[in-house]
Amino acid sequence: MPVYDAPVTDTKYVLDHLIGLQNYTNLPGFQNADADVVEAILTEGGKFAAEVLAPLNRSGDEEGCTRHDDGSVTTPEGFKEAFDQFREGGWGTLAFPEEFGGQDLPHVLSTAFSEYVVAANQAFEMYNGLTQGAIAALLAVGSDEQKATYAPKMVSLEWTGTMNLTEPHCGTDLGLIKTKAVPQDDGTYKVSGTKIFISAGEHDMSENIIHMVLAKMPDSPDNVKGISMFIVPKYLVNEDGSLGERNSVTCGSIEHKMGIHGNSTCVMNYDEATGYLIGEKEKGLAAMFIMMNAARLGVGLQGLAQGDAAYQNAVAYAKDRRQGRALKPEGRDQDAKADSIMVHPDVRRMLMDTKSFTEAARALVLWGALQVDLTHKAQTEEEREQANDLISLLTPVIKGYLTDKGFEAAVQSQQVFGGHGYIREWGVEQYVRDARIAQIYEGTNGVQAMDLVGRKLGQNGGRAVRAYFELLAEDIAAAKAAGDPAGVAEPLEKAVGHLQGATMWLAQNGMADPNNAGAGAYAYMELMGLVTLGWMWLKMAGKSAELKEQAGEDKAFHEAKLLTARYYGERHLPEASGLRRKVEAGAETLMKMPVEAF
Amino acid sequence: MPVYDAPVTDTKYVLDHLIGLQNYTNLPGFQNADADVVEAILTEGGKFAAEVLAPLNRSGDEEGCTRHDDGSVTTPEGFKEAFDQFREGGWGTLAFPEEFGGQDLPHVLSTAFSEYVVAANQAFEMYNGLTQGAIAALLAVGSDEQKATYAPKMVSLEWTGTMNLTEPHCGTDLGLIKTKAVPQDDGTYKVSGTKIFISAGEHDMSENIIHMVLAKMPDSPDNVKGISMFIVPKYLVNEDGSLGERNSVTCGSIEHKMGIHGNSTCVMNYDEATGYLIGEKEKGLAAMFIMMNAARLGVGLQGLAQGDAAYQNAVAYAKDRRQGRALKPEGRDQDAKADSIMVHPDVRRMLMDTKSFTEAARALVLWGALQVDLTHKAQTEEEREQANDLISLLTPVIKGYLTDKGFEAAVQSQQVFGGHGYIREWGVEQYVRDARIAQIYEGTNGVQAMDLVGRKLGQNGGRAVRAYFELLAEDIAAAKAAGDPAGVAEPLEKAVGHLQGATMWLAQNGMADPNNAGAGAYAYMELMGLVTLGWMWLKMAGKSAELKEQAGEDKAFHEAKLLTARYYGERHLPEASGLRRKVEAGAETLMKMPVEAF
Repeated sequence: MPVYDAPVTDTKYVLDHLIGLQNYTNLPGFQNADADVVEAILTEGGKFAAEVLAPLNRSGDEEGCTRHDDGSVTTPEGFKEAFDQFREGGWGTLAFPEEFGGQDLPHVLSTAFSEYVVAANQAFEMYNGLTQGAIAALLAVGSDEQKATYAPKMVSLEWTGTMNLTEPHCGTDLGLIKTKAVPQDDGTYKVSGTKIFISAGEHDMSENIIHMVLAKMPDSPDNVKGISMFIVPKYLVNEDGSLGERNSVTCGSIEHKMGIHGNSTCVMNYDEATGYLIGEKEKGLAAMFIMMNAARLGVGLQGLAQGDAAYQNAVAYAKDRRQGRALKPEGRDQDAKADSIMVHPDVRRMLMDTKSFTEAARALVLWGALQVDLTHKAQTEEEREQANDLISLLTPVIKGYLTDKGFEAAVQSQQVFGGHGYIREWGVEQYVRDARIAQIYEGTNGVQAMDLVGRKLGQNGGRAVRAYFELLAEDIAAAKAAGDPAGVAEPLEKAVGHLQGATMWLAQNGMADPNNAGAGAYAYMELMGLVTLGWMWLKMAGKSAELKEQAGEDKAFHEAKLLTARYYGERHLPEASGLRRKVEAGAETLMKMPVEAF
Repeated sequence: MPVYDAPVTDTKYVLDHLIGLQNYTNLPGFQNADADVVEAILTEGGKFAAEVLAPLNRSGDEEGCTRHDDGSVTTPEGFKEAFDQFREGGWGTLAFPEEFGGQDLPHVLSTAFSEYVVAANQAFEMYNGLTQGAIAALLAVGSDEQKATYAPKMVSLEWTGTMNLTEPHCGTDLGLIKTKAVPQDDGTYKVSGTKIFISAGEHDMSENIIHMVLAKMPDSPDNVKGISMFIVPKYLVNEDGSLGERNSVTCGSIEHKMGIHGNSTCVMNYDEATGYLIGEKEKGLAAMFIMMNAARLGVGLQGLAQGDAAYQNAVAYAKDRRQGRALKPEGRDQDAKADSIMVHPDVRRMLMDTKSFTEAARALVLWGALQVDLTHKAQTEEEREQANDLISLLTPVIKGYLTDKGFEAAVQSQQVFGGHGYIREWGVEQYVRDARIAQIYEGTNGVQAMDLVGRKLGQNGGRAVRAYFELLAEDIAAAKAAGDPAGVAEPLEKAVGHLQGATMWLAQNGMADPNNAGAGAYAYMELMGLVTLGWMWLKMAGKSAELKEQAGEDKAFHEAKLLTARYYGERHLPEASGLRRKVEAGAETLMKMPVEAF
């Protein structure tokens, strides 16, 4: 039976010491997040995730979702009841505005809680997560009437939401979509088409499902500029807010997938379904990107969460399993025939690789969530702009790098189990299968890399990446002045040098030949991810070096942070030079290969 | 429906030009492998794999094996009939001695054929593969009577074989096994105990199953020195060779696994089953290692094969799928709304990463198989010794590195499919699940790394690794003299420098503290794998540079080899410096972390 404990202590360390939540009480909503509220949400939320959601993770995987002949879908046993508890606990309302029934708490706090839910049960979390994305779009571009109609019920999770983008012949290239929306005399639209890979598209957990659907109007250009977004509810909503007639949107089938079996991934058929334009005509892609950017950060979080859940299981197994002997006599348990496999350096290597990833990833995800808060709430335009610049730049890195590394962490953790890791009963292979999707959906990681290199780097004349490098330089200088307590500053400085070199190379050679940008994009994203996690370790090492001397602090906790930071500096940051070489290899060899030679 | 074509042209390129099969016709058995025989085996074998076995791969995965109440096990539909065809075609007999019904062909040729079978259907191949391992042990340490009783029926695949090592509480640390073998007055033994993870332990495809079982006699030391090996047949064999009474060995359950569902992974219960000592008392581990070393090379082959099968599907998908536009106008298909995704540099990067792995891995596996042949058959003691040194050194690299990279190749290939890659129907996610086991069984890859660093490097005063470096140096010098046609010699030389540096570091610091050897072992194995594949590219580039100018040669084929070699040199060999840094980071940080801090 897999184990999971919410890492509340580490979350609080990041919130309190790394991003200093208490420094922002002057911002709207942040005053709601006093120490007691933070403590209550993390502790109770962690308990809910561990006790209610984690036990349904494996059974949900085994059972999966079932589509019935009438097109209805049943979620795995226990999911509906758990979702009722989730709804009743108000867990979906944390960061939404009070006017729609939310608690108006900082996004950074709801993100911290989300990690626990995803780690405990990713398939379950997606029913909520997709709803959050749909609400984000609704609040950003919906009319006041639309907000009033849908937002309160969605915030409360009485109704859930979905995003409908992909069609059988297109996902990345949305300009190709065929779904049509034909205007009607009453101002509504008849939406017709087929959407695939619709997570939580149909299920039995909420009264209504509000689909956000991309479609083209008959008079719109048949390309990416002709896309509009529509609200298509499963049940139409009467003027008094009660549910009306069933809309002609149905689940045609559910996909059989590698993982996340507890989430219903639907083919949705729209057959002249009644839809409502949301946002401006032909501005659907922009509206969709509001959902998408939030979703991408949420997907990055999935990498972290699945990696950490797998890691926790690997640690439990490694402590328990006895096999072989410590290489040095002093490490041996003389009372037993074999030692715990924690004595083996290579087992520790696997665990430390993951630990040094997950803790830095947690710091990065929460730091990123704070930037989202600041983008909306910081007091000066300058602060809002800088926060927006940074999170825009790093969104593809958080999505792409954290999901790659999270998958790797799940695979490494499975490896710690030896043969048992391959057996379903132990539960760890599920993390590998579930984590895998995060590298693919919401824009494959290759698409993230192109977003980073092709769009984000050059935006506003490179303002964001310049700010990023300045922050790094300041922190490195400060760490060196403080004696570089975990030896991270020096390898980080070298790695930053490689990242700057690669940035320059792309600036020069990507202009001359855009294929150079495409050919180097992935390694560039990895290099920026490597450096950014190193930055988080630099920050954590600095904080822990200070804190470990303070009375009342858990000295062992901070010593472990310093050791893990050192490990990252010794073992991971030196990968930077190889990644830079990949960027600078350019496109020539790649593009020269004739198609038929593959 | 997944596709698979046996890469016969590439196999022949390696056999003909890289390892020069025709230069060894003076060795026993090699004269059986004339050009016509090689052509027939590869072509017909490839056809059999593609047409009979590949179509059963996905259905076998979906259906899995079924254990019935009486302990019998049914394999997926079609497996039994395909195994009959495999048997009737004599495909299991290729490299075995004529006296036992084999064809006495070179191991290198049967290995070439095996790749196709594994790529087409890994779960199926294991029924044959385990038998081959059991035969290897039988022929090496069995008595003449035992060979006469079992070998002919096993070579013909009328009977299959298994390896029984692992028990619930131990796998890597076989000293802990509890299975007992109690001597009887008639010279037989009563074998009792539970073995787990027994691939092909029970099934419906052969008349009899010959289990090779590790157990301890009552008077043997209760550690690794007390292990003996026993033959325990499912049905006892009468003196006339007919099947006698059912032995008391039963399949207690079959495991539910992440992948290789078509192979029955059994818990085997031995309840005073009749067994026969094979080899000497308390020399069971040595006998087992005969199976194991052959098996490890076979598992390395699985990495290559699954990677190539996944790659072929990714290429087919990428050629077909249209999404987005080429970054440069001249690459665009003006007659279509979108271009094939082969125009995108990042898609090509994923495919080239895999292509540059699989082709070099094929060269390495076949080169390694030739060393196995030479170990037994070379004409001078010196040649036999050098071949044995090289294959002993590189067996853990072939097993560990090729399965890691093969898994990565399957994951990359899945990524090319975008969302469709996550859907079972497309078949590519199965390669990921199936490839994963190869990193775990026959000694986890961490165990391989320790075998390399802890045993193989230092054996005979480092004779093997010195010979390895000499061969590399010669080939690099020759390539430079020939103008380094694909630019591989220069980055390879640097990478070799890092490998030599890391070797020196381990020699010095691994002696001082064995945990340094353990902490660096994995990265060292990766570094040697990286260099060894680079070596194969150096050899292939040299050959193709020569051949492409010759009449009658397929110039485009050789141009593609040169480009792929260049890609490997530009993109992969520069990873060497980061890997060396990992080796040289040592054990201190790793071992300092208190167990409770994980």
